[in-house]
Amino acid sequence: MAFELVGNPNVIEMEYAVRGPIPQRAAELRKQGRKIVPCNIGNPQALGQKPLTFYRQVLSLVEDPARIGRERALNRMLEEGAGSRSGPLERFPEYVLEVGERVLAGLESGLGAYTESKGPAFIREAVARFIDQRDGVASSGGPPCDPERVFLTNGASEGAKRIIELLIAGPKDGIMIPIPQYPLYSASIRQCGGVAVGYYPDEDRGWTLERPILDEAYQRAGAQGVRVKGIVVINPGNPTGAVLPEQSVRDVLDFAAARELVVIADEVYQENTYGAEFVSFARVLGRGDLPLFSLHSVSKGFYGECGHRGGYLEVRNPPRLKGVGLGACDVLLKQASVSLCSNTVGQVLTYLLVSPPPAGSEPSALFALEKQRVLDTLLEKATMVKAAFREMQGVECFGRIGALYLFPRLGQLPPGTTDFDYCMSLLEATGLSTVNGSGFGQREGTQHLRIAFLPEKALLEEVLPQWVRFHNQYVARK
Amino acid sequence: MAFELVGNPNVIEMEYAVRGPIPQRAAELRKQGRKIVPCNIGNPQALGQKPLTFYRQVLSLVEDPARIGRERALNRMLEEGAGSRSGPLERFPEYVLEVGERVLAGLESGLGAYTESKGPAFIREAVARFIDQRDGVASSGGPPCDPERVFLTNGASEGAKRIIELLIAGPKDGIMIPIPQYPLYSASIRQCGGVAVGYYPDEDRGWTLERPILDEAYQRAGAQGVRVKGIVVINPGNPTGAVLPEQSVRDVLDFAAARELVVIADEVYQENTYGAEFVSFARVLGRGDLPLFSLHSVSKGFYGECGHRGGYLEVRNPPRLKGVGLGACDVLLKQASVSLCSNTVGQVLTYLLVSPPPAGSEPSALFALEKQRVLDTLLEKATMVKAAFREMQGVECFGRIGALYLFPRLGQLPPGTTDFDYCMSLLEATGLSTVNGSGFGQREGTQHLRIAFLPEKALLEEVLPQWVRFHNQYVARK
Repeated sequence: MAFELVGNPNVIEMEYAVRGPIPQRAAELRKQGRKIVPCNIGNPQALGQKPLTFYRQVLSLVEDPARIGRERALNRMLEEGAGSRSGPLERFPEYVLEVGERVLAGLESGLGAYTESKGPAFIREAVARFIDQRDGVASSGGPPCDPERVFLTNGASEGAKRIIELLIAGPKDGIMIPIPQYPLYSASIRQCGGVAVGYYPDEDRGWTLERPILDEAYQRAGAQGVRVKGIVVINPGNPTGAVLPEQSVRDVLDFAAARELVVIADEVYQENTYGAEFVSFARVLGRGDLPLFSLHSVSKGFYGECGHRGGYLEVRNPPRLKGVGLGACDVLLKQASVSLCSNTVGQVLTYLLVSPPPAGSEPSALFALEKQRVLDTLLEKATMVKAAFREMQGVECFGRIGALYLFPRLGQLPPGTTDFDYCMSLLEATGLSTVNGSGFGQREGTQHLRIAFLPEKALLEEVLPQWVRFHNQYVARK
Repeated sequence: MAFELVGNPNVIEMEYAVRGPIPQRAAELRKQGRKIVPCNIGNPQALGQKPLTFYRQVLSLVEDPARIGRERALNRMLEEGAGSRSGPLERFPEYVLEVGERVLAGLESGLGAYTESKGPAFIREAVARFIDQRDGVASSGGPPCDPERVFLTNGASEGAKRIIELLIAGPKDGIMIPIPQYPLYSASIRQCGGVAVGYYPDEDRGWTLERPILDEAYQRAGAQGVRVKGIVVINPGNPTGAVLPEQSVRDVLDFAAARELVVIADEVYQENTYGAEFVSFARVLGRGDLPLFSLHSVSKGFYGECGHRGGYLEVRNPPRLKGVGLGACDVLLKQASVSLCSNTVGQVLTYLLVSPPPAGSEPSALFALEKQRVLDTLLEKATMVKAAFREMQGVECFGRIGALYLFPRLGQLPPGTTDFDYCMSLLEATGLSTVNGSGFGQREGTQHLRIAFLPEKALLEEVLPQWVRFHNQYVARK
């Protein structure tokens, strides 16, 4: 039997360049023994970034609570002068053991039980405290975050998908997304059968946003009969890396209020600003009554714990849903219920992210050192890559350094070639795996690529000169 | 501004009784200080089941690889005669340390990196070996499982949702589901805008299946203009607990072949058969060319690791998709890519599930003991609950004991009352949280409830007599 069926076109046609043909070709080359430098995805630990000691020690204790007693007994043995022939073992920090016990007490049944669909209350409460402290609620008098409106998720992607699924009620429903954008948004909107309405941050002015940019996109969509229901903003940007100034955040909120749109703020790179100030949408919204959905994740920042798939979605002013007597949070809870709960290890990591060891506690010095080392190294690597761009004919890169990415404009490519061709050739020539700008969307007539500035410095020193040579030969072709 | 929007009706209207009004009321009562016995969900570790030592030790090592060297050093100290004042510490099993190292080698970048979207190859290969061994492929000459067609998922739910999303291409597309069924299926079909077509296993004959039952449902759907595309079978059953005989499996496959339907085999309870033989769909399919999607999970069985959200989806004979030059696995891969990957800890636990310590290895005796203890205790508890049913007027419970549930038929309830009313009153009277049969669907005119037989025996001994009293008073009401 030649079995064939009609599949769901929304799923069949969605595209996801970050895991698309270029990384697939890279995987093939790697199997053949080629050395690949995987810069197509923000996956720091795949490129040698070490996890933070504190996080992993706590997770290890919570997975195997017997370790807590074991480490206490070992600490006593060490105090009594016991030692190993192969050198002294270090004391295990008592504070970390206490955090492990605190997490286990909060979880009640350990990591192996389903939690509340939203996640355990003690973690949602810690998330709320973190948000309030980040946004200076105590001094600004802004409204505090409500832990009942925090949903723990498997990474930020899951939260984003649920909001989109809730908003898209028909084929003419649209959501505004920045161009370029992280393809999770275009793919999820496509998957839900809606329309992605692109708006174009101003590349030459560092990818900033102003009202006319947003109004133009909204009106264009309206002229095509699209009912716009929300706007996605990624800050710091992905793929652009741009950190939005407060005025841009304000402009988005004013625009959304004027048009009665919900705002979806993807803030997963909020720690990756390298000195620039991060201004959250919740902080600027303050006492405003606009619906706001904010996303965060354990995957990025200085933590880089992508594989653990932890994150949260926070809702302000949840909109009511017409004619059904329910609010957006009621439906988000139903959606979470069908998946039972997000993974508990990701939940605990989210708790640790929002509850760093306080200054003066035993692990705080090492924690601060490891954190600063990651952030400093990322900035150094970004600076190295940016420097290489200056040696590449026609390449320009705008905006402050943020997130984990640079998104250079490639200038004039040989006639008939695209940024996809360029990235594929770059991969074949140097082993460097990037993503073509068209995978994120870009203004017509421009060509870009996204590179995650994650490889170790020694590797960058090796591959960047190869890239410069490749580039200058490539663009010189007729 | 009174913000109101039109939400997606498919998401708004889906229902999920396992986390519905009764457990929500139970949570309220619990907050008020009432003692609740949560039997509404198969969540063993929430009710005191201990995780298996081997699993958790490995996960603890993999979260904090420094522990491997630390435990080796401690083992040396213990060999040298060091001891703690509070009693001797036990040696850490070398075999477990080696498994930790093997997993870390397989993962390459530890738990903190995104893996391949499908999951790491070494885990998918171990899943394939497990399936082949379970199904006796070496002796039967059946086709081996292809690791490229194994997808690791966040629990089995994620795999089920992806298949449904792929199959439902329009509002007249239907998928056959058993009635009663696990509400993941009805909710996901609803969410995707398709039609759930119920078929009715024969309760009085132990919930078995025969061709006429399936043909009747198919024809009924066809008469309503529904295009049936697949059939879901849950074996062992949820909520019924029934273990299907080989002939029922064969009947489903023959039916699906005759009607050109794909088969979705939810086999997450394959270890929960308490002596009955589990016959997988893959084994009976053998060299047949029918598309088969099989699901498994770390949440059930004797492992009960619900919170870790691990599982896999295995595809046999992936169907081609009409007119697009893609097969089902290509689209499943795209769907997985948008979520980047499932959580790595759940992936590793899936690896451990399919790679138990071999007989004779250091942890194998304890592992076998813990496993048997869980399964024996579950059977004892199910037997206790079944015995209580015999004291309840009019209650009947059919089928062999399987999965983690009993699904008794409640007999005649007082006029005007439903099984929902019964379950709510039972909760208020005794603290026992169950799910009404109508939450799973049931033949019209019958009333049921589902109870997960998970509370500790002492707790059951306390609550079962209360339930018997409640029941006999309830049904005596006019």
